Amino acid sequence: MMELGGIPADILSQHPWFPVNISGCHLLAKSWFGDTAYHVLLTDMKCVWEERMESAAIQSRAQELNRRLRAPVRAFYSHLREIVQPCLMGSNKEPASEAQIFLTRQEDGNIIMKLKSELAGLPFYWEFCCIPASVSQVCLQLVRPLLAMSRLLQHQVEQLRGLLLRKDAEIQDYKENGATLSRERLETEVFDEHTQREDFMAKALPLLCSEEQDSLGFSSELQHLYSVVTATDPTDQRKAPKRRLSEDPPLTKESDPTPSLALEEREAAKNGRSNTEATADDRSSVKEQSVSITSNPTERLSTKPKKKKVGLFK
Amino acid sequence: MMELGGIPADILSQHPWFPVNISGCHLLAKSWFGDTAYHVLLTDMKCVWEERMESAAIQSRAQELNRRLRAPVRAFYSHLREIVQPCLMGSNKEPASEAQIFLTRQEDGNIIMKLKSELAGLPFYWEFCCIPASVSQVCLQLVRPLLAMSRLLQHQVEQLRGLLLRKDAEIQDYKENGATLSRERLETEVFDEHTQREDFMAKALPLLCSEEQDSLGFSSELQHLYSVVTATDPTDQRKAPKRRLSEDPPLTKESDPTPSLALEEREAAKNGRSNTEATADDRSSVKEQSVSITSNPTERLSTKPKKKKVGLFK
Repeated sequence: MMELGGIPADILSQHPWFPVNISGCHLLAKSWFGDTAYHVLLTDMKCVWEERMESAAIQSRAQELNRRLRAPVRAFYSHLREIVQPCLMGSNKEPASEAQIFLTRQEDGNIIMKLKSELAGLPFYWEFCCIPASVSQVCLQLVRPLLAMSRLLQHQVEQLRGLLLRKDAEIQDYKENGATLSRERLETEVFDEHTQREDFMAKALPLLCSEEQDSLGFSSELQHLYSVVTATDPTDQRKAPKRRLSEDPPLTKESDPTPSLALEEREAAKNGRSNTEATADDRSSVKEQSVSITSNPTERLSTKPKKKKVGLFK
Repeated sequence: MMELGGIPADILSQHPWFPVNISGCHLLAKSWFGDTAYHVLLTDMKCVWEERMESAAIQSRAQELNRRLRAPVRAFYSHLREIVQPCLMGSNKEPASEAQIFLTRQEDGNIIMKLKSELAGLPFYWEFCCIPASVSQVCLQLVRPLLAMSRLLQHQVEQLRGLLLRKDAEIQDYKENGATLSRERLETEVFDEHTQREDFMAKALPLLCSEEQDSLGFSSELQHLYSVVTATDPTDQRKAPKRRLSEDPPLTKESDPTPSLALEEREAAKNGRSNTEATADDRSSVKEQSVSITSNPTERLSTKPKKKKVGLFK
């Protein structure tokens, strides 16, 4: 998969979705924070939004939002990352006391996540401007993994049904040989696939409507399963564990075994965000230079200025 | 949900996805054909495309593609529907001998499904020009149902595990009372959730890579489950069966129980296709007037003209 503005297009595909609560909105979030670049995905399961930003665009937006700021991107980016990352990873911990995060939705369907915090004693503002994600991104991050999860679970249901039939065969043999139970309540009904399925649907479907509002239905078990299947995306042979390289998928009857409609890359390129201007070189060149400004709150407090020129601000 | 150009935005949500093979491409298709309007969705699980067309737009495109055609939309629409609908519903039957359907992908990421058939003895051309669907459409048609399916299956796995534990308790009681098996091979191992899970993942994951290429992983069991959960979309209370109206979902702690980020309608409106110009009135006004031109092939043959003006063509 190609890179978009230096951020690999599938950088997030193996990251988990975290249930988050921002300004009282329940969302699922996926995020990747590089050295001076990030990619954020948010969804309420009715839409999916994203923002990709690279060094130059981050610098330029920071300048717009913080007129007095005069610092290279690596100097404030680590602060931004430190505040936002826990929030997007479903940490229950409140962000640092001076930081506030708001979510607003725009008339045009975009959402903006606004951050107000304090950096070197002065207010620091940031905005994540998230636009609807491309359809190929939604397929990559949600549709395909969810389908793979369903298939896996369906297989598992079938396997467990098979086991139940074998248990019943064993029980029947004991009974036929005259065995009795010491405690009657231990007796189970003979498992019948059809009855169980009907019965299950009647009981489980109503639950779908009432539970797990917080995680938008993405329970921790499913999150675990998500991480399992995204580590094994069947449509991406590069990710397949090495032991399976010898088990190639059977060719279809057509001359082209892989239906040639994978327009993903093309579409991704078309949707490449214009605000991701920097290159991967930018990122790697500052890799070891990242400075954590707020890692020591005491230090920050001790250098807190009032209407006085500081290192990061003019 | 609002209407877009007379077609209700969720008209397709309870329709199944059918695996189809067009020009050697394996796709999933969902389609709705009204009286003189249609909505088609196609996906290769890497992108999702759609086209919505209404009476006036259908008329205008038919005119462009068939210069000699002079007929009201209802006169040729039923022919189009008759040829295409079986093809999009996964029918193995070849389209009528004179009809051919091709799929081509465009440089811009769109796909075009071209139809060439015969109507009243003359060639009849049609093109479905499918553009990437809106993200809200993808969420409605794939993401939410797939997540609901996963949740349902996960519940079922848990229920079956519970049953297995009860079977084991019963078996243990027989054994403790000295029961023996007449056939040793009927003896099962004690079910251990952890072992079974590990074992299952090790065996089932490799299968994900190799099976069900034709249906893109959307097996018939999953298709059945899809229809069950889309008839019970937990996020759409209108569709909830009446017996559950008394079981309201618990309110969340926020003042607004439904996170107000459902931008779906807004986005859908924004993405309203400009080629859907007619209104719902158009549709209903011709409801009883639809004429099936090709319903009797003999009749068609008997009136087959050569270079002669016919009813539908000029």
